[in-house]
Amino acid sequence: MDLATVIGLAIALILVIGGIIAGGEPGAFVDFQSLLLTGGGTFGAVIMSSTMAQIKLLPKITGKSFFANPPDLVGLVQTLVSFAEKARREGLLALEEDAAQLDDVFISKSIQLVVDGTDPELVKAILDTEIGLLEERHADGKKMFDAMAELAPAFGMLGTLVGLIMMLRNLDDPDALGPGMAVALITTFYGSFIANVFAIPISKKLATRTKEEILSRELVVEGVLAIQAGENPRIVEEKLKVFLPPKLRESLDEEKKGGGAQEGEEAE
Amino acid sequence: MDLATVIGLAIALILVIGGIIAGGEPGAFVDFQSLLLTGGGTFGAVIMSSTMAQIKLLPKITGKSFFANPPDLVGLVQTLVSFAEKARREGLLALEEDAAQLDDVFISKSIQLVVDGTDPELVKAILDTEIGLLEERHADGKKMFDAMAELAPAFGMLGTLVGLIMMLRNLDDPDALGPGMAVALITTFYGSFIANVFAIPISKKLATRTKEEILSRELVVEGVLAIQAGENPRIVEEKLKVFLPPKLRESLDEEKKGGGAQEGEEAE
Amino acid sequence: MDLATVIGLAIALILVIGGIIAGGEPGAFVDFQSLLLTGGGTFGAVIMSSTMAQIKLLPKITGKSFFANPPDLVGLVQTLVSFAEKARREGLLALEEDAAQLDDVFISKSIQLVVDGTDPELVKAILDTEIGLLEERHADGKKMFDAMAELAPAFGMLGTLVGLIMMLRNLDDPDALGPGMAVALITTFYGSFIANVFAIPISKKLATRTKEEILSRELVVEGVLAIQAGENPRIVEEKLKVFLPPKLRESLDEEKKGGGAQEGEEAE
Amino acid sequence: MDLATVIGLAIALILVIGGIIAGGEPGAFVDFQSLLLTGGGTFGAVIMSSTMAQIKLLPKITGKSFFANPPDLVGLVQTLVSFAEKARREGLLALEEDAAQLDDVFISKSIQLVVDGTDPELVKAILDTEIGLLEERHADGKKMFDAMAELAPAFGMLGTLVGLIMMLRNLDDPDALGPGMAVALITTFYGSFIANVFAIPISKKLATRTKEEILSRELVVEGVLAIQAGENPRIVEEKLKVFLPPKLRESLDEEKKGGGAQEGEEAE
Amino acid sequence: MDLATVIGLAIALILVIGGIIAGGEPGAFVDFQSLLLTGGGTFGAVIMSSTMAQIKLLPKITGKSFFANPPDLVGLVQTLVSFAEKARREGLLALEEDAAQLDDVFISKSIQLVVDGTDPELVKAILDTEIGLLEERHADGKKMFDAMAELAPAFGMLGTLVGLIMMLRNLDDPDALGPGMAVALITTFYGSFIANVFAIPISKKLATRTKEEILSRELVVEGVLAIQAGENPRIVEEKLKVFLPPKLRESLDEEKKGGGAQEGEEAE
Repeated sequence: MDLATVIGLAIALILVIGGIIAGGEPGAFVDFQSLLLTGGGTFGAVIMSSTMAQIKLLPKITGKSFFANPPDLVGLVQTLVSFAEKARREGLLALEEDAAQLDDVFISKSIQLVVDGTDPELVKAILDTEIGLLEERHADGKKMFDAMAELAPAFGMLGTLVGLIMMLRNLDDPDALGPGMAVALITTFYGSFIANVFAIPISKKLATRTKEEILSRELVVEGVLAIQAGENPRIVEEKLKVFLPPKLRESLDEEKKGGGAQEGEEAE
Repeated sequence: MDLATVIGLAIALILVIGGIIAGGEPGAFVDFQSLLLTGGGTFGAVIMSSTMAQIKLLPKITGKSFFANPPDLVGLVQTLVSFAEKARREGLLALEEDAAQLDDVFISKSIQLVVDGTDPELVKAILDTEIGLLEERHADGKKMFDAMAELAPAFGMLGTLVGLIMMLRNLDDPDALGPGMAVALITTFYGSFIANVFAIPISKKLATRTKEEILSRELVVEGVLAIQAGENPRIVEEKLKVFLPPKLRESLDEEKKGGGAQEGEEAE
Repeated sequence: MDLATVIGLAIALILVIGGIIAGGEPGAFVDFQSLLLTGGGTFGAVIMSSTMAQIKLLPKITGKSFFANPPDLVGLVQTLVSFAEKARREGLLALEEDAAQLDDVFISKSIQLVVDGTDPELVKAILDTEIGLLEERHADGKKMFDAMAELAPAFGMLGTLVGLIMMLRNLDDPDALGPGMAVALITTFYGSFIANVFAIPISKKLATRTKEEILSRELVVEGVLAIQAGENPRIVEEKLKVFLPPKLRESLDEEKKGGGAQEGEEAE
Repeated sequence: MDLATVIGLAIALILVIGGIIAGGEPGAFVDFQSLLLTGGGTFGAVIMSSTMAQIKLLPKITGKSFFANPPDLVGLVQTLVSFAEKARREGLLALEEDAAQLDDVFISKSIQLVVDGTDPELVKAILDTEIGLLEERHADGKKMFDAMAELAPAFGMLGTLVGLIMMLRNLDDPDALGPGMAVALITTFYGSFIANVFAIPISKKLATRTKEEILSRELVVEGVLAIQAGENPRIVEEKLKVFLPPKLRESLDEEKKGGGAQEGEEAE
Repeated sequence: MDLATVIGLAIALILVIGGIIAGGEPGAFVDFQSLLLTGGGTFGAVIMSSTMAQIKLLPKITGKSFFANPPDLVGLVQTLVSFAEKARREGLLALEEDAAQLDDVFISKSIQLVVDGTDPELVKAILDTEIGLLEERHADGKKMFDAMAELAPAFGMLGTLVGLIMMLRNLDDPDALGPGMAVALITTFYGSFIANVFAIPISKKLATRTKEEILSRELVVEGVLAIQAGENPRIVEEKLKVFLPPKLRESLDEEKKGGGAQEGEEAE
C-alpha cells in the first residue's frame, strides 16, 4: 500500500470537496452532462492516443500507484549475499531450488539463467533488455496519465466554450446570466480537478515508482553477475550497498554485525 | 483497423457533439465562415511549415492512424525462426523464394540482401539507415499534426479577436452584445476542437505507431543477421523473444511446445 | 520557388483578411500606431537578442523560405556517380575542370580538395566542420524567427495593456467603452497575426530546409570520399542511394536501367 | 546561513505584503478556508506525487536552502594539498587520524578508503556512485518544489472556480458581486504567492546548491586520487585549482606565497 | 559596444513609451508602489534563486550585454599564425615576451603554458577545463535573466490580483471601477515590460555572446596546440580558418595575399 498516494489524495479531496460543501450548495457542483463531456471526452481522446493493449492496462497501472509497495532493497541485498555464500559453499547449482521459491519473478529468472550456465555476457544482455523493456512499458503507462493531464483542462475549456456560446445567444433575461456562466464553468472545474487532483500526481508517482523499480533490478543484475563470477560474499555486499541510500545502509549494517571488522582485514 | 483510434474518436465526438445537441441549438455551432478562418487558416500555416511532398502524404498518414494494424511480432519471430531452420538445412539461397512471397517489403529486402551474399556489416548498415530514414519520415508526418495542434487554437483566438474587435466597435445595441460574443467565441471553439479532439490524439497515436514499427524492424534486423551468421534456430528464437512484451512471449510459447526442454540442454 | 510557403501563406492571408473584410469594416483593423508598437517593438527586441551581422541576414533568410528550391538529391547522386566513373577511367585530376563548372560551391570545393590530393581524413574533417558551421548558422537564423514568435504576442499584450489602462481611467462615457476596448485589442491581434501567420510557419519551414540541406551535403561528403577511395561507381551509387527517400530511389532507377542485373553479380 | 535566500525572501515578502497593507485592508487577504484549499490541496497533491520518505525530508531540504553554507572550496584545496604533503613525508597511513577529525563525512570517508589500501579504481567507482546518488537524491528533493510550483497556481485556480460558480448562482444581489469575486480571487492569489515567492525560488536555489556541492565533491575525488597516486603536492594543487572560479584562485594564491616561482621550475 | 543591444532597446523603448505618451496621459503609467511590488518582488525572488556572488556580478553581466565587443576572430587567427611563424624561426621560448603583451588573458596564459614546456595533453586539459568553467559561469549569469523573465510577469499578476481584490471589495461607487482596474493592471504592464523589453532579449543576447566567446577560445586552443606541435604556419592557418564564417574567411584572404598559390603546392 502506497500511503503517500492514499493520504495525499485524501487531503486534496477533503480540502477541495470540503470547500465546496462549506459553500452551502454542493449540488451545484454535480452536473452529470458536464462530467460526461469533460471526463468522457478526455477519456476518448486518451484512448485515441493509445493502443487497446495499453488502455486495458490502465486500471492495473492506476491500482499500482495506490497499492504497490516500494521494493525492499535491504532484503534484496541480504538475499543476494546469502545466495553468494551458498554458491561459494555448494556451487551455483545449489541455488536452483531457492530461486524457484522466490516471489520476485525477475530475481528467480536471473538466478535460473546463471544456474543454467548461460554465458555471463548473455545473462547481462538479456537482463538489461528486460529492464529496458520494463522502463519502456512503464513510460507508456505514464504517457496515458500525461495525456489525461494535458487533455482534461482542454476538454473542460471546450465544455465551457459550448456553455458560453449557448448562454450568450440568449441574453434576454439578465437574471439567467450568472447561473448560465456557473454551469458553463463547471466543465472547466472538472477538467482542472481531473488534471491536478488525479492525473498529474499519479503521473509523478508512477515516475517515482519506475525509478525505484529500475534501481532494484539493476541491483539484482549487479548481484547475480557477481555471484556468477564467484566473488567473495563480502565484496558482493560492498558492491550492492552502494545502491542503497544512507539510511538503508545503516539499517543493513544494524541487522548484520561483524562486517566492519572484516572490512579492515580486506584492506591489507 | 486501429480500434483505439476509431472508438476513442467516436466517444469524444459523441460526447462533445451530444453536449451541443442537448443544449437545444446545434445550429449555433455551425458557422461556415468561422470554420474557414480557423480550419483553413491553420491548414495554410501548416502548409507553409511543410514541403509539398509532405503535405501530399497527409491523407495517407491520417488514414494510417485509423486503419494501420499493429505489427504481428509473434508472427515475425515465427517466420524468422522458420527461415533460420530452412537456412540451416538447405543453405541461405533456399530462402530466396520464400522472401519474395512475403508481403512485408522490409523483411523480404533484408532476406534478399543476405541471399545475395552481401557483407554482414553492409547489411546492417543498409538496414539501419533504412530504419533511421523511416523514423525521420514518420517524425516529419507527426510534425504536421503537432503544428496543427499548436496553430489551430492560435487561429481560433485570432478569429475571436477579429470578432470581438468588430463587435466592440458597434456597442450601441446592448442586446447584440451576447450573440456577438457567441459568434466571436465559435472560432476559439473550433480551434480547441481541432487541436484536442483531432490533432493532439492523432499525433500521439502516430508516435505510438512509429515506436511499434521501429521495434518490429529492429527485430527483423537482429533475426536476419543471426540467420546470416548461421546461428542455431533456437538461439535465434531466444534472441528475438526479448523483443516481445511478456504477454506475447507466453502466446509464442503456447504455439510452440518443447522449447523449455531444449533450454536445459543448451545450458550444459 | 517554395510553393508550399507561397500557397500556405496565401491561404492563411486570404482567409484571415477575407474574414475581416467580410465583417464590413476592414478599416477598423488598420491602426498605424498599434502596428508600430507591436511590430516595431517586437523587431527592436529581436535586434537586442541578436547580433548586427545576424540582423543583416534577416531579409536573405526570409527570402530563402519563400524562394529556395529543395536540393536535387537525384541529380547529386547522378553527378557524383558520373564523377566516380570519370575518376576511375581518367584519374582524379580529370575532375578538376568538371568541378569548377558546378554551380554548387560545396560540391566543387569538395572535389577540389580531393583533386589537390588532400589527405582523406583532413577532407572529411574540413567538410564536416563546414556542415557543422552551416547548421549553426542556420540555427542562428531560425532563432530570430523563434524570438519573433515568442515576443510578438507579448508586445501585442503589452499594447493591449497600455490601451486598457488608458481607457479604464476615463470610463465616464460608457459608450466609449466598446470602441476603446476594440482599439486596445488590435495590438493583441497584430501580435498573434505576426506570430502565427508569419513567424512560426517560417521558423518551421527553415527547420525543414536545414534538414534537407544537411542531408544533401552529407550525401556529397559520402560520395566524394568514395570517389577519393577509388571505389567502384556502382558501389558509390549504392552507398548514395540510401540517402534518398523511396520515391526518389524509384525515379533514380527509372532514369538509369541495368543496375538491378549488376547487383546480382556484385554479391558473388 | 544562505544570505541570498533570507534577504531575497525578505525583500519579496516586504514588498508584496507591504503593498497589501498599504491598500488599507490587509484583513481582506486573510481567509483561512482559502488558504486550506490552496495550500493544503497543493500539499496533498505533492504528497501523492512523492514517497513518504521524501516527504519526511521536506523540512530538512527547505531548511537547507536557507541555512546551508556554500562549500569552502579554497579550504578544501588547502586541506587536500596539506594531506598530499603529509602523505609524501610520512606515508598514506599517517592520514588516518587527520581524516577522522574532519567534519566533512565525504572527505573523511574518501581518505579512509585510501588509507585502507582500496584499489584506486574501486575508490573512484565508490565515490562516483556516492556523488551520483547524492545528485539523484537532491533531484528528488527539488522535484517536490517543482511539483509545488506547478500545482499551487492550479489549486488556486480550482478554488477560484469554486468561488465563482457559487457566486454566479446567486446573482440576485448585484452588490454582492464584487466582494464575492474578491473572495474567489484570493485562492488564485495564494496559489501564485506560494509558487512565485516560495516554491520557484527555492527550487532554483536547490539547483544552485546541488551544483556547488557536486563540484566540491568532484574536487575531493580528484584530490584523493592524486594523493593515492603519490603525486607531487604542487601538482595536486595545480590540478585542484582548475575547479576554482578566478576570484577564488586569487585568494588561494594570496594565502600561499611562493607557488609562482616553483611553477617555472616545473616547466623545465 | 554592442550596437544591436543599444539600437534594439532604443527602438523597443521609443515605440512602447511613445505609444504611452501619444495616449496623452503618461503619468497614468507611473506608479511607484506598483513598480516596487513588481520590480522589487521580482528582484527579491531572483536573489533567493541565486547566490550572493552571482548577484554581485549582475551589473557587470548586464553591462557586458551592452558594451562587449564580439571577439575579433580574424585578428586571433593572424596573431596565432604569426606566433606559429616566430616559433618555427626562433623556438617556442621566443613567444614568451609577445604573449605577455597581449590584452587577452586566455591566449597569453595558453602561450605561457606552452612556453613553460607543459605536456600538450595537460595544456589541452587545463584549457578545456577553463572553457568549461567559463561556459558554466556564463550559464549562471544567463539563468538570472531567465528567472527574471519568468518571475516578472508572475509578480505583475500577483500585484494585479492584490489590486483587483482590494477594488472588488469596495464596489459601491461604480465610477471607481475603471480607474481601480487601471491601477491594478499597471503591475501586469510592468511585469510584462520587464520581461519582454529587458530580461528576455538580454538573456538571448548573453547566449549569443557565450557562443561567440566559446568559439574564439576553441580557436585559440586549436592554434596553441598546433604551435606547440611545431606545425607549418600555413597548416595552422588552414586549421584555424575553418572556425571562421565565410565572410570572415574572405576578409582574412584579402588581408593576406599569396596563400592560394601555396595551397596547390601543399597538395603535392
